[in-house]
Amino acid sequence: MTVTKTLPEKMKAIIKDAPAYGAKLVNVDVPKSLEPHEVLVKVKAVSICGTDLHIWLWNDWAKAHINVPQILGHEFAGEVVSVGKNVSLVSIGDFVSSETHIPCQHCKQCRTGNMHVCQNLKILGVDMNGAFAEYVKVPEIVLWKNDPSVPPIWASVQEPLGNAIHTIFVEDVTGKNVLVTGAGPIGLLAIGVLKTAGSAKIIVSEVNDYRRALAKEIGADVVVDPRKESLVNVVKKETNGDGADVLIEMSGNPQALKDGLTSLTNAGRASLLGVYDKDVQINLNDLVIFKAIRIYGITGRKMFETWYKGAELLKNKKLDLSKIITHVLDFDDYERGFKLMEEGKCGKVVLKL
Amino acid sequence: MTVTKTLPEKMKAIIKDAPAYGAKLVNVDVPKSLEPHEVLVKVKAVSICGTDLHIWLWNDWAKAHINVPQILGHEFAGEVVSVGKNVSLVSIGDFVSSETHIPCQHCKQCRTGNMHVCQNLKILGVDMNGAFAEYVKVPEIVLWKNDPSVPPIWASVQEPLGNAIHTIFVEDVTGKNVLVTGAGPIGLLAIGVLKTAGSAKIIVSEVNDYRRALAKEIGADVVVDPRKESLVNVVKKETNGDGADVLIEMSGNPQALKDGLTSLTNAGRASLLGVYDKDVQINLNDLVIFKAIRIYGITGRKMFETWYKGAELLKNKKLDLSKIITHVLDFDDYERGFKLMEEGKCGKVVLKL
Amino acid sequence: MTVTKTLPEKMKAIIKDAPAYGAKLVNVDVPKSLEPHEVLVKVKAVSICGTDLHIWLWNDWAKAHINVPQILGHEFAGEVVSVGKNVSLVSIGDFVSSETHIPCQHCKQCRTGNMHVCQNLKILGVDMNGAFAEYVKVPEIVLWKNDPSVPPIWASVQEPLGNAIHTIFVEDVTGKNVLVTGAGPIGLLAIGVLKTAGSAKIIVSEVNDYRRALAKEIGADVVVDPRKESLVNVVKKETNGDGADVLIEMSGNPQALKDGLTSLTNAGRASLLGVYDKDVQINLNDLVIFKAIRIYGITGRKMFETWYKGAELLKNKKLDLSKIITHVLDFDDYERGFKLMEEGKCGKVVLKL
Amino acid sequence: MTVTKTLPEKMKAIIKDAPAYGAKLVNVDVPKSLEPHEVLVKVKAVSICGTDLHIWLWNDWAKAHINVPQILGHEFAGEVVSVGKNVSLVSIGDFVSSETHIPCQHCKQCRTGNMHVCQNLKILGVDMNGAFAEYVKVPEIVLWKNDPSVPPIWASVQEPLGNAIHTIFVEDVTGKNVLVTGAGPIGLLAIGVLKTAGSAKIIVSEVNDYRRALAKEIGADVVVDPRKESLVNVVKKETNGDGADVLIEMSGNPQALKDGLTSLTNAGRASLLGVYDKDVQINLNDLVIFKAIRIYGITGRKMFETWYKGAELLKNKKLDLSKIITHVLDFDDYERGFKLMEEGKCGKVVLKL
Repeated sequence: MTVTKTLPEKMKAIIKDAPAYGAKLVNVDVPKSLEPHEVLVKVKAVSICGTDLHIWLWNDWAKAHINVPQILGHEFAGEVVSVGKNVSLVSIGDFVSSETHIPCQHCKQCRTGNMHVCQNLKILGVDMNGAFAEYVKVPEIVLWKNDPSVPPIWASVQEPLGNAIHTIFVEDVTGKNVLVTGAGPIGLLAIGVLKTAGSAKIIVSEVNDYRRALAKEIGADVVVDPRKESLVNVVKKETNGDGADVLIEMSGNPQALKDGLTSLTNAGRASLLGVYDKDVQINLNDLVIFKAIRIYGITGRKMFETWYKGAELLKNKKLDLSKIITHVLDFDDYERGFKLMEEGKCGKVVLKL
Repeated sequence: MTVTKTLPEKMKAIIKDAPAYGAKLVNVDVPKSLEPHEVLVKVKAVSICGTDLHIWLWNDWAKAHINVPQILGHEFAGEVVSVGKNVSLVSIGDFVSSETHIPCQHCKQCRTGNMHVCQNLKILGVDMNGAFAEYVKVPEIVLWKNDPSVPPIWASVQEPLGNAIHTIFVEDVTGKNVLVTGAGPIGLLAIGVLKTAGSAKIIVSEVNDYRRALAKEIGADVVVDPRKESLVNVVKKETNGDGADVLIEMSGNPQALKDGLTSLTNAGRASLLGVYDKDVQINLNDLVIFKAIRIYGITGRKMFETWYKGAELLKNKKLDLSKIITHVLDFDDYERGFKLMEEGKCGKVVLKL
Repeated sequence: MTVTKTLPEKMKAIIKDAPAYGAKLVNVDVPKSLEPHEVLVKVKAVSICGTDLHIWLWNDWAKAHINVPQILGHEFAGEVVSVGKNVSLVSIGDFVSSETHIPCQHCKQCRTGNMHVCQNLKILGVDMNGAFAEYVKVPEIVLWKNDPSVPPIWASVQEPLGNAIHTIFVEDVTGKNVLVTGAGPIGLLAIGVLKTAGSAKIIVSEVNDYRRALAKEIGADVVVDPRKESLVNVVKKETNGDGADVLIEMSGNPQALKDGLTSLTNAGRASLLGVYDKDVQINLNDLVIFKAIRIYGITGRKMFETWYKGAELLKNKKLDLSKIITHVLDFDDYERGFKLMEEGKCGKVVLKL
Repeated sequence: MTVTKTLPEKMKAIIKDAPAYGAKLVNVDVPKSLEPHEVLVKVKAVSICGTDLHIWLWNDWAKAHINVPQILGHEFAGEVVSVGKNVSLVSIGDFVSSETHIPCQHCKQCRTGNMHVCQNLKILGVDMNGAFAEYVKVPEIVLWKNDPSVPPIWASVQEPLGNAIHTIFVEDVTGKNVLVTGAGPIGLLAIGVLKTAGSAKIIVSEVNDYRRALAKEIGADVVVDPRKESLVNVVKKETNGDGADVLIEMSGNPQALKDGLTSLTNAGRASLLGVYDKDVQINLNDLVIFKAIRIYGITGRKMFETWYKGAELLKNKKLDLSKIITHVLDFDDYERGFKLMEEGKCGKVVLKL
């Protein structure tokens, strides 16, 4: 018994139909046919990721990774409407979100708590059709049951929230001085999380005026435009000369990384989530080795430790996303959402269906 | 040059002068003579610890550990007025508090980051004269420089605050469901810290009505009177059936410990600060081993990781002690302070000088 | 296509056929019918666990947990001969062993790296038919592919070896002074592992003369008969007065636990695998709290971090099991194996098929 | 009472007397005058560090850091012959070695278990006269009491041994596949330690034939000349395609770092001790971030956790240095020692007095 509700034949979907800038809203078939462990979800909210923007812009990364035609998107919340015959984790009617990293479940990483860096990883919306559609098909292994009290618009943001949480909580941050370099959507989520977690002082470096102001509103104690002030000097001054305890690198900017590492106190910690356009040239002796710095490369989310942490914060109303989600648009108004992302005049942008 | 200010000959001090209930306010000599690494501090605020109460009550523990006559007290804040000739950590005029655990600096524990459990530990106000006096003499190794912005009344509470912080942060608590058993002064400080740290849900068990109400006001999400409700049932219900992630045991009550361990989710964590009147009888198989529980015995504070965390929270106004410190009394009114502690009708009680 | 080899209809199995002492060797049906994720393994070697001995002896634990008739056993190595239609982790012909803890894969523990303490755990050979048979059926999730170079007799011991590894490596042991209380089969495996891991000094407490001698042969630096010497005194003497860094409690004896904790240095670590006949009465203040001890309750194995560690040690010949496996018997000679276990005149006992 | 033995007026010392290649053996005054916490040690054995070689060669680093005239050397063992009046850690006659990093004891790092990266660090033999002399003066805080059973020649090597131990044991290595890039003296010590610690497979990359052969003799399972084979391919082949679990980077060669990171399995760990001639250009995305690698910058030794581990291994004869110390020369024959180091035709070179 695979199909259990009357489903329409067609659905709306935002699709990359050609190897060029942009994407189209089209009607496509609902993916009704499910493998034994697959689940079909009716999407209620989707949020736009930086990865979606790369695909929209059709940059070098997108050219190398995306086969057209393909449905974009991977950050979503919705309702289970159909389950494959061996599915037991979720039931029809469940309110769910989904991890984006689809693991093989067999490799060394999958069997030792590191499914997020599976050797045979597939990414939803990158290696297969995604969630910018009325219905999306995913394997049960990646599904996450949401608490009914969490609004779908917030629930759809748990995946990038999970990036922020994963980056931050490699080690404890309460009572620590934390530098966040880069206040894009995930950086802004990180600021909200750091505030919730009782960081002593949250210092944020960001060149975009809109986002720097937003960072402040969300909870940054100090914001810096690194083109106008020396980030290193500000951090030293704000930390009694010691330097920051923690660097949360969210910018993908080599100078931010170097200034961030310089700003760290000896034996401090850096978590790197931002990705760089090219090789980074760095003085490892002075910035890492002689300072005894710990660097954590971060990608994805711990499955599912990260999800538990994020979901508990939302369910118990300990984290407020209302200022971080700056725009909630109709699904059909997706082009405006992408434009906002292009211009950087937004926090998190969510489309509702 | 040992003495650098004109100091009076005599000072007020609260002293245990006889092996019996109570303590007296008397005039004693100011301890002007300093060893090369000793420091004399003019006390501005002192807070009453449960240990002081034991000495006041002259219970079995006190009889075994205290030699009369002795000045009580060890939680304080004040100003450096004189320094021994080899002191270099602090200077005259510095606003300081002090760690209570005085380490030998030579044993294995002292040389491997565990000075708080030094093999030759001496305790201020227990093994030597304490801080319930106008002046107190301490070795520089235990001194902590306070930020001038922190009021002395709050600064005097950093030592028990450090107990709470040490107990809590053995592992991260953000987004976790935490059960606190026992809402005495340190339990109440723990609740404040857990709230600051973004715990998902703070559940508190306490039999004293006053303190249960105070726990709620400070930030407990759920409070339980374990004589009227099943603590285990409440925790299961509040945690989606999973149980608590963390147990913070502050009661010293064996039933609280057992209910707390039963309430933990498998692979959960328990930190034990409370001390028990006698041996505890416990089902280690079902409560610890088959559940894969981690238990941390906690005493004192990490020197000085714990102090940094607490001081940064206070300095940056991320932790509010105003509701936790329920009574600020004149030093001479100390008997009222001890009575409040005896009756449990208080949070933290501070005496000011 | 479920069945892929010609399998016999009947097989030999050691079965608990009545609620009484002992077990019988009988002919039963080969369990050919497989669920989609199940695998049938032809057993080549099985080893006798303490749990099997409990069932053999029909003690209180066995009476409460075992439904007769049931095939005993869960420590084995063999060859995959048939796979359910959705199995993808292993193939026919693979040389495998198996984890004993069968997880639900859905609960909080299963989704956060703690499958070994799944809330809905089933145990092979306890909650279902086991591996003391020519064929055993297991779900693929628990299977482990062995390196062909490891002999089946050694491969069958990986499950209890995993208990020892899990108990030991909660924290690093190289260069540490380690006390092992209890030199039963898992204690002996622990001694072998500690020697491989470069423990500074391995001190072993055991009352059984045969096993104490065996402990020495396997690599214990010091062995103690705690009825004849003070274990606490020996440990202090052997550790320069500091006490042991690590306690590996494998005895399930309350006095061993208490002596072990007393023997630990302040801020030391205890891992408890042994299970106790009844509640333990313990001075938590002096043995745990004021000493700042970390206690880890241990059960099962980390899935599959523990298996990787054990398998790599065997495959790379860094761990020698030849002295620890004292008896290799024919399957039909199982009664002699159980008698050896009853008398304690053995290390690990393996039956070969 | 500062001086307690009849000490000679003059002593032999190896001194950098001019800003040029080499060093001279001269007679200088014995440093008899001690501050309250200083200790005078009669040196019995000194070993030659790479840092000493830099000073000998007078390379750019030496020019920037060394003020002539200065006595070289910092790896030593000897006997306490005089103590300052406040010294209490050691006594005259004690057999000691010394940490090289002299901490201020006041800064944030010093007060939180990170004295080795003190903000005001001074280095013995770099910022002050060193130990290549008959007598050396050090503050008591850095002294380490040796077990009398350890020969002085081995005891003198504990400081670089500590580098290896610190680099390795940031995380556990037993049963792990470890790649060591660079088999200079510290790399060779690392190989010995990894063997003692039960690493599954030790793979070593080194271009120097002599040292590659020595690596094999000390315990490397696989040695690679990276100019002749692809290091990445060898590692993949030797680790079942998964890659190494741990990278111990001891070469200071950028290509070794990059190949090492490429050779790591996802979620693997890299510890960097080697220092680089200049900035390193690196693909952080592919080598660190998307692989979820943890990088630890390592310098010095944990004070004194590292010393305890090394000393226990030596005292209990669990680590054999006899093959690693390839040359023991007379003190006067120091020029031969430096030449051996220049040519790389040695493991560890020790001078005896």
